[in-house]
Amino acid sequence: MQTPFHTVGLVGKYDNLCMGESARALGEFLRRRGHEVLLACQSADHLGIRDFPTRNLHQLATECDVVVVLGGDGTMLSIARELAPHGAPLIGINQGRLGFLTDITVEDMYDALAEILSGQYVAEERILLNGLIRRGGEAVFESTAFNDVVVGKGGSGRLIDLEIAINSEFVYSQRADGLVVTSPTGTTAYALSAGGPIVHPTLEAVALVPICPHTLSARPIVVSSHSRIEIHLTYADDARVHFDGQSYFDLKSGDHVWITRASRPVTLLHPHSYSYYDTLRQKLHWGKKL
Amino acid sequence: MQTPFHTVGLVGKYDNLCMGESARALGEFLRRRGHEVLLACQSADHLGIRDFPTRNLHQLATECDVVVVLGGDGTMLSIARELAPHGAPLIGINQGRLGFLTDITVEDMYDALAEILSGQYVAEERILLNGLIRRGGEAVFESTAFNDVVVGKGGSGRLIDLEIAINSEFVYSQRADGLVVTSPTGTTAYALSAGGPIVHPTLEAVALVPICPHTLSARPIVVSSHSRIEIHLTYADDARVHFDGQSYFDLKSGDHVWITRASRPVTLLHPHSYSYYDTLRQKLHWGKKL
Amino acid sequence: MQTPFHTVGLVGKYDNLCMGESARALGEFLRRRGHEVLLACQSADHLGIRDFPTRNLHQLATECDVVVVLGGDGTMLSIARELAPHGAPLIGINQGRLGFLTDITVEDMYDALAEILSGQYVAEERILLNGLIRRGGEAVFESTAFNDVVVGKGGSGRLIDLEIAINSEFVYSQRADGLVVTSPTGTTAYALSAGGPIVHPTLEAVALVPICPHTLSARPIVVSSHSRIEIHLTYADDARVHFDGQSYFDLKSGDHVWITRASRPVTLLHPHSYSYYDTLRQKLHWGKKL
Amino acid sequence: MQTPFHTVGLVGKYDNLCMGESARALGEFLRRRGHEVLLACQSADHLGIRDFPTRNLHQLATECDVVVVLGGDGTMLSIARELAPHGAPLIGINQGRLGFLTDITVEDMYDALAEILSGQYVAEERILLNGLIRRGGEAVFESTAFNDVVVGKGGSGRLIDLEIAINSEFVYSQRADGLVVTSPTGTTAYALSAGGPIVHPTLEAVALVPICPHTLSARPIVVSSHSRIEIHLTYADDARVHFDGQSYFDLKSGDHVWITRASRPVTLLHPHSYSYYDTLRQKLHWGKKL
Repeated sequence: MQTPFHTVGLVGKYDNLCMGESARALGEFLRRRGHEVLLACQSADHLGIRDFPTRNLHQLATECDVVVVLGGDGTMLSIARELAPHGAPLIGINQGRLGFLTDITVEDMYDALAEILSGQYVAEERILLNGLIRRGGEAVFESTAFNDVVVGKGGSGRLIDLEIAINSEFVYSQRADGLVVTSPTGTTAYALSAGGPIVHPTLEAVALVPICPHTLSARPIVVSSHSRIEIHLTYADDARVHFDGQSYFDLKSGDHVWITRASRPVTLLHPHSYSYYDTLRQKLHWGKKL
Repeated sequence: MQTPFHTVGLVGKYDNLCMGESARALGEFLRRRGHEVLLACQSADHLGIRDFPTRNLHQLATECDVVVVLGGDGTMLSIARELAPHGAPLIGINQGRLGFLTDITVEDMYDALAEILSGQYVAEERILLNGLIRRGGEAVFESTAFNDVVVGKGGSGRLIDLEIAINSEFVYSQRADGLVVTSPTGTTAYALSAGGPIVHPTLEAVALVPICPHTLSARPIVVSSHSRIEIHLTYADDARVHFDGQSYFDLKSGDHVWITRASRPVTLLHPHSYSYYDTLRQKLHWGKKL
Repeated sequence: MQTPFHTVGLVGKYDNLCMGESARALGEFLRRRGHEVLLACQSADHLGIRDFPTRNLHQLATECDVVVVLGGDGTMLSIARELAPHGAPLIGINQGRLGFLTDITVEDMYDALAEILSGQYVAEERILLNGLIRRGGEAVFESTAFNDVVVGKGGSGRLIDLEIAINSEFVYSQRADGLVVTSPTGTTAYALSAGGPIVHPTLEAVALVPICPHTLSARPIVVSSHSRIEIHLTYADDARVHFDGQSYFDLKSGDHVWITRASRPVTLLHPHSYSYYDTLRQKLHWGKKL
Repeated sequence: MQTPFHTVGLVGKYDNLCMGESARALGEFLRRRGHEVLLACQSADHLGIRDFPTRNLHQLATECDVVVVLGGDGTMLSIARELAPHGAPLIGINQGRLGFLTDITVEDMYDALAEILSGQYVAEERILLNGLIRRGGEAVFESTAFNDVVVGKGGSGRLIDLEIAINSEFVYSQRADGLVVTSPTGTTAYALSAGGPIVHPTLEAVALVPICPHTLSARPIVVSSHSRIEIHLTYADDARVHFDGQSYFDLKSGDHVWITRASRPVTLLHPHSYSYYDTLRQKLHWGKKL
């Protein structure tokens, strides 16, 4: 076998037993084709798979040439955030409906992986965002997002007051439910519901999308991904910053949230037949060719 | 003096001392013109006014022919909810920038009140909304809103799942940040930030405005104010129902929120020069006559 | 046979031969059930049907107890405008995909008509709009719309300047591609594409929806259907007023367009199973019950 | 005098006599400071200025080190399209309210030009778009836009059917009033009225913004400026393609419009105090620092 990908990592969504079945079958398929297969410890434990050597995510990322993620887009978001600093490319497989990030179905996975692992693939680099919270001049929290960093009101339902600057240049102040700062990947997630544009995943850009802004002329803004987005929470009873909607940190009046591009992007591998726009059309019920 | 309004109630925003000064001056002005003036107890206490007989809000509403509210739109919202069941008409005076509900400035208040109290006024009836929360077949909470009843996600930031019916007819299910059910009055408040239309305050209508809906083809819907809006919270980790953004109640998965028109409207009195559209233009920075 | 509807009119879309087949079959079905059936002349001519006495639309409207329209929503719009002044109720049958106004499929038409014509139906009154163009103080054109009256830029693509008043009260001036004034029926047509809300078809309301307004804080406004909407075209190189997108009149700078509710509404008859919200959900791809 | 800009071109809006006065005064100011000043022929003719040697626009672009444009944003658009292929940087001066492209007021022009021409400036490269119309395999028209290329319905008001592809990859088909393809510069012009996002002027991007799309889930899309946007007009009674709203070409069913980045960008020079976001805030009535 000739392949740029000798060692293949497998991660399955932890709480999904069907995924366990698919993961085991896929692992055996890959081993038969001559790959060394390593399984994420947590997937092994939760899914009860004993057939492959196991590694934690950190080891997986450093020892594997490529990592296959079985699960929905939510699973891919959390795995991608963990593996991004180590650089292994990712392949996403979805048990149910196609996702934006998990664009291969379980039915197609054997053919698609055979194709990709033999070197026939499209590689796509996608940026992640880094969010740093500063309070009284000190960094108090830091985390990473693949989709979006959202500064939003808390459960009290009171609007919050924000001042936005980009690269230290003042942009506007805003009273709103919140602000989504989104990577191109995240523009088809929460930002889209908030009225943001779709940004092609490979564009070097970041979008700022206000949530229910008090100022009716507020509009989404798209800027270079090399910008530093500075959000100053000038007033809030109750506010939070969310990372991919999967973790959060409580904010106080006066806090600053600085958002920059993470130092390393994630590389996704797709089969040659992959089309970003096909996925968009399917997910958004857009019109087909006439 | 000939007037349909012999006894005038006064309510001032509790924590605003300037309002106290205006309230005392206005009370004296009205007494000099032959009106009996009654002051809300809480205003008397907080603003330190000892010059007028005091009453609680309930008494004020039943003993007065008209009640003057000094404060912003927020003050008017809370007073109107309390007084609505008793039927006394309301006049709103604003210390600062004009509000939608408090459309007379402190500077103009003597002339405007002289005019209105002599019988020269425009009366406008505005509906309120009643929200009833049902859990397991039992009513567990009930409250009133002048602007809006909002079913929304809590601080966790997770989307909630709703099923909407109107008069028992199924409308749609929706995954969203929430849903605003707004009176015409509330269409220039939170619902407007969420993308809702402006509904003329005297139209017998209620609008449903989704907040960041997952389904991109979701749109605001305007229906008769005599409808019963039924919201079934089919799934939520963490959700709340808010009344005018001033009080709330925690919801659980499976709860039903029923929203109907409150049995009595509020009557607002305006000077003859009042124009709803003038206020809209000012507040929304719309174009003047060319 | 006991029926409130002895004489039934039939109108088929003129240029659709399939519709001709359905119209003939339907006419025979109705005659067998004891109804007198009259056919629109133009339908008879274009569809080549010789089996029934023919009438022009005016006669049809006055002689029939109910008129059945076979075609799409476009056909219903034009027939409804013609028949509205005469008061005969209408039933809409659609050859293809369900329409908003033609809510019975050809497959279901026998059962649905048997049910409706035996007196089992839901009647729904829907308003029409009347548009009057005034130039230099004189009326120069007048027409009727079921969906909408649209004042819009012409082919040059230049924005137009409008001043809007409602019942002689100034609302705003606007530079825009145009303005849609829509009946509740029309809110699911062009106005929806322009960002307008959905208004329940039986609400006594009219909506004003700006098209690509220059002022970013412009929003749709919903007012009573008893209002007079006055549009003053203060400047335009090239502008037109459109009625249901089916006829138009060229406008000049300085023209006034006055829009009021037409004196008579149209009555649509539906089977008991009819649900306005079912149609909305289908047409707009909204979520079903979970 | 030390300056990178020895020869300065002047172009004034042709039909604005005040501009003529400002142009003459500015030319004298520059000559006193040691610059060679050349005036556009048409400005000289229309504004009646005889004090400077004249050149046509082509000559101006090749002989000058920098060209100063006096007028509004509309003037700058047309001059920039003409001069872009020749590479001379541009400075914009506005007689009235600040523009997005003409960001120096007549009041500030002496100080601002002294500063810029002495080498103290911010240079900003902005892309232009090239639009090519193909009919039956042949190129039938070609033009350039600084803001936007708009494929839109004509005066009949009938929707048009479009199929969009990007770099030969099918994106979606759409029934709409039209589609705006906009440079970053154009995102604050017509595209903004149509609901598009604001794209920072130096981002290497192009945005596609549908106008009143029939499909409610249609959204603006932002892609790399190095993309080829292919619009296939699959059906239209009556359609046009507009360039900056200043020129147009009539389209027929079946036509293809291909939009790419023009080969050369335009360079705008601004004083050091220039802030893109300041202009945005002023023009869009956004909130200031709290």
